[in-house]
Amino acid sequence: MKRRTRICELLAGEGLGEDVEVRGWVRTNRVGKNVAFLAVNDGSCLASLQLVAAPELANFPQICAIATGAAVVARGRLVESPASGQRYEVHAERLEVVGTSDEQYPLQKKRHSFEYLRSIAHLRPRSNTFGAVFRLRSSLAQAVHRFFAERGFLYVHTPIITTNDCEGAGELFRVTTLDPAAPPLVAGAVDFSQDFFGERAGLTVSGQLEGELFAQAFTDIYTFGPTFRAENSNTPRHASEFWMIEPEMAFADLMADAALAEEFLRFLCRHVLDHCREDLEFFNEHIDRELIARIEAVADSSFAMMEYAEAIDRLRRAPVSFEFPVQWGLDLQTEHERYLTETAVGGPVFVVNYPKEIKAFYMRQNDDGTTVAAMDLLVPKVGEIIGGSQREERLDLLAPRMAELGIPPDSLWWYLDIRRWGSTPHAGFGLGFERLIMYLSGMENIRDVVPFPRTPRHAQF
Amino acid sequence: MKRRTRICELLAGEGLGEDVEVRGWVRTNRVGKNVAFLAVNDGSCLASLQLVAAPELANFPQICAIATGAAVVARGRLVESPASGQRYEVHAERLEVVGTSDEQYPLQKKRHSFEYLRSIAHLRPRSNTFGAVFRLRSSLAQAVHRFFAERGFLYVHTPIITTNDCEGAGELFRVTTLDPAAPPLVAGAVDFSQDFFGERAGLTVSGQLEGELFAQAFTDIYTFGPTFRAENSNTPRHASEFWMIEPEMAFADLMADAALAEEFLRFLCRHVLDHCREDLEFFNEHIDRELIARIEAVADSSFAMMEYAEAIDRLRRAPVSFEFPVQWGLDLQTEHERYLTETAVGGPVFVVNYPKEIKAFYMRQNDDGTTVAAMDLLVPKVGEIIGGSQREERLDLLAPRMAELGIPPDSLWWYLDIRRWGSTPHAGFGLGFERLIMYLSGMENIRDVVPFPRTPRHAQF
Repeated sequence: MKRRTRICELLAGEGLGEDVEVRGWVRTNRVGKNVAFLAVNDGSCLASLQLVAAPELANFPQICAIATGAAVVARGRLVESPASGQRYEVHAERLEVVGTSDEQYPLQKKRHSFEYLRSIAHLRPRSNTFGAVFRLRSSLAQAVHRFFAERGFLYVHTPIITTNDCEGAGELFRVTTLDPAAPPLVAGAVDFSQDFFGERAGLTVSGQLEGELFAQAFTDIYTFGPTFRAENSNTPRHASEFWMIEPEMAFADLMADAALAEEFLRFLCRHVLDHCREDLEFFNEHIDRELIARIEAVADSSFAMMEYAEAIDRLRRAPVSFEFPVQWGLDLQTEHERYLTETAVGGPVFVVNYPKEIKAFYMRQNDDGTTVAAMDLLVPKVGEIIGGSQREERLDLLAPRMAELGIPPDSLWWYLDIRRWGSTPHAGFGLGFERLIMYLSGMENIRDVVPFPRTPRHAQF
Repeated sequence: MKRRTRICELLAGEGLGEDVEVRGWVRTNRVGKNVAFLAVNDGSCLASLQLVAAPELANFPQICAIATGAAVVARGRLVESPASGQRYEVHAERLEVVGTSDEQYPLQKKRHSFEYLRSIAHLRPRSNTFGAVFRLRSSLAQAVHRFFAERGFLYVHTPIITTNDCEGAGELFRVTTLDPAAPPLVAGAVDFSQDFFGERAGLTVSGQLEGELFAQAFTDIYTFGPTFRAENSNTPRHASEFWMIEPEMAFADLMADAALAEEFLRFLCRHVLDHCREDLEFFNEHIDRELIARIEAVADSSFAMMEYAEAIDRLRRAPVSFEFPVQWGLDLQTEHERYLTETAVGGPVFVVNYPKEIKAFYMRQNDDGTTVAAMDLLVPKVGEIIGGSQREERLDLLAPRMAELGIPPDSLWWYLDIRRWGSTPHAGFGLGFERLIMYLSGMENIRDVVPFPRTPRHAQF
């Protein structure tokens, strides 16, 4: 298939002096005395290409009337631009409008609030900010796959519909085909044996448990797929549907897990610095003036590590008054995490070995009897960005722990099974993909880094 | 992070003559008079590495008792193997069992039926066949991203939870947090305004409509995510949850669409021939003797193209009696598709321009008034593998067509909107990822190419 020329290539000077074809959407149309200047964008990069149209063109009157938002196809010569702010422009020899626009077009030149733009999520990708956000998102997603592919990790599609609840939390969406108005009842309770899957089913909150199964066959695996939380919370950091990256390694302990997390995060920082520079500079100018400096610092730093107990100790001695209590046995809040990474350490820091009561059943119990081999990676500005653990691989410790927490062994027989034959020390972590994009773009609302966000009472488009 | 040596690297001779570390699961343990031979597999490739353990090892008696399925870690020298069937082996200087096994281990050496293996989907990745299947799946998924990344396509995560139904089909899973036993009713009907999203929501059947929105900003985009069908059909080709790849291109017609589909499928065939050779050879020997020849033929052939009308004509004149009727206006069945690609053409063939009545509302109406710009790509052995179309970009044709089919315009106001401002001719297609894996592995049941398949009454693991 013959490749089409993209505007990012033309702006890099590919085809200079030659006849090229340009396709895209008009961002602005500035009509001078004897010429029209059209800024055309095709989404391949932030910048628009300037099309210069002269009155010699048969449809020049029509060209002068082209409104913002119209789709055009043009042919012409790519030349150096005499104007400042751009190196190249195209002198149109033909310019055709394939899709008109008008003054009703919702993305006029004036600035719009992010909140308004969420209501036109079908059009906001054509704006500078959201063009940059979704290019960054795509580039990062592809880089995630490249990172793991280069390291021999197997990509596994863990199930979306599930009959188990990984974290033991109740915030599951139910998936059903039962008649919603008249569900089959037995003694007042719904008879899920008549539902599509023959039992109660829901949307996954994590692919970890199934990922562990695959790690016990392929050694190094990762998942990258959608996960769901039915929490009724309206915050800038929570969405009902989001994507997670969850690597899992057999024959690996907590230190190997932390080493992978550090390598991964630094790789992703380096990736956006090297491959998304134009968009990053846009974010740095318009969204967060510290962005590039912060990403560079993470990309170049070596991450610190601190025991949970030490973290508590340092927080208690901190000359700061926190909103939430600091005490051994309580989870860290964002304010605590940010103090640790921003003030106490001054860079990324792993906090490891948390009290077992505040962590999930599957985490490996340490010999002290009170902590588990958990790790959270904290980074400046946001606090926790990655959470992981070594998993309990010893059946004689896992089974009693599940019993203690009231998790019926029958519900996870297969999870116990892989501890029965050829069990290995293994570890993994989870990185919320939207959190990552927010961190690397400076965008502060998760609704603005998801193409079509799902939150309580919102599932449009 | 220091990389760990993988068995596929050792079997390629990396580190020959050096001390290496080996980790994996024991496939067989053959104990001779003065030596134990352990075949160890870590999932990085099909082949196992032979570990040779001599009686000098302090734990030799324990080594001799290692059962199939145990997890071991060994150190030793990588040397050329005197035995046939393998070039290298490791002479163990230390061999530690990290996870024992016993004769209850369900994957003993004897052959198991695929049906039985489905019941132990947590362990089947440790078998030769499923190791090969899931390596192929992972390698293909990563190759899909590489294909599009290299061509500047933007990866978009279209929503999983949706309030619209792309194809107009009713086979949706409902997603809800309402009390299943006592849903809120208004006049006998469920009051979905009280549900989590404030309206009736379900799982997506396709990301196409949202993909189109992004193509109207980024020109070339693709989706690759899970999709769902609540059809109560138990066939080897249908699953309730499966992954789809859906590219969409602005400024593109049906011919550009077909060109991309051809380039894509040939790339994927070439990819597995070049990068999954060992696993392909396994499939060719054990699953389908024609496999590699068939893939090579597709990789090297130029695809034919045929009008639907001509296809009907040739089917009617075929010296074959079909089970299903052949008539202009009826959809093609698999038997028809296979005849066309296998007998009529003898290779991959696009059938284009189908009657509009048997295709979706969004396909572009041809000037003849009776057909739409649809294409199906048919390949030997399976029939249709890719389906796509040019989309109706003309508002004045799309809106009446939707009305004709009873689709309320309010439900897709955003889809209509992108035809209002800057509309472009655009086209795309869908490739079911599991169909692709079946095609490239010879596996005949979709349940055997999905890690943890979801089908009616089955959502285990």
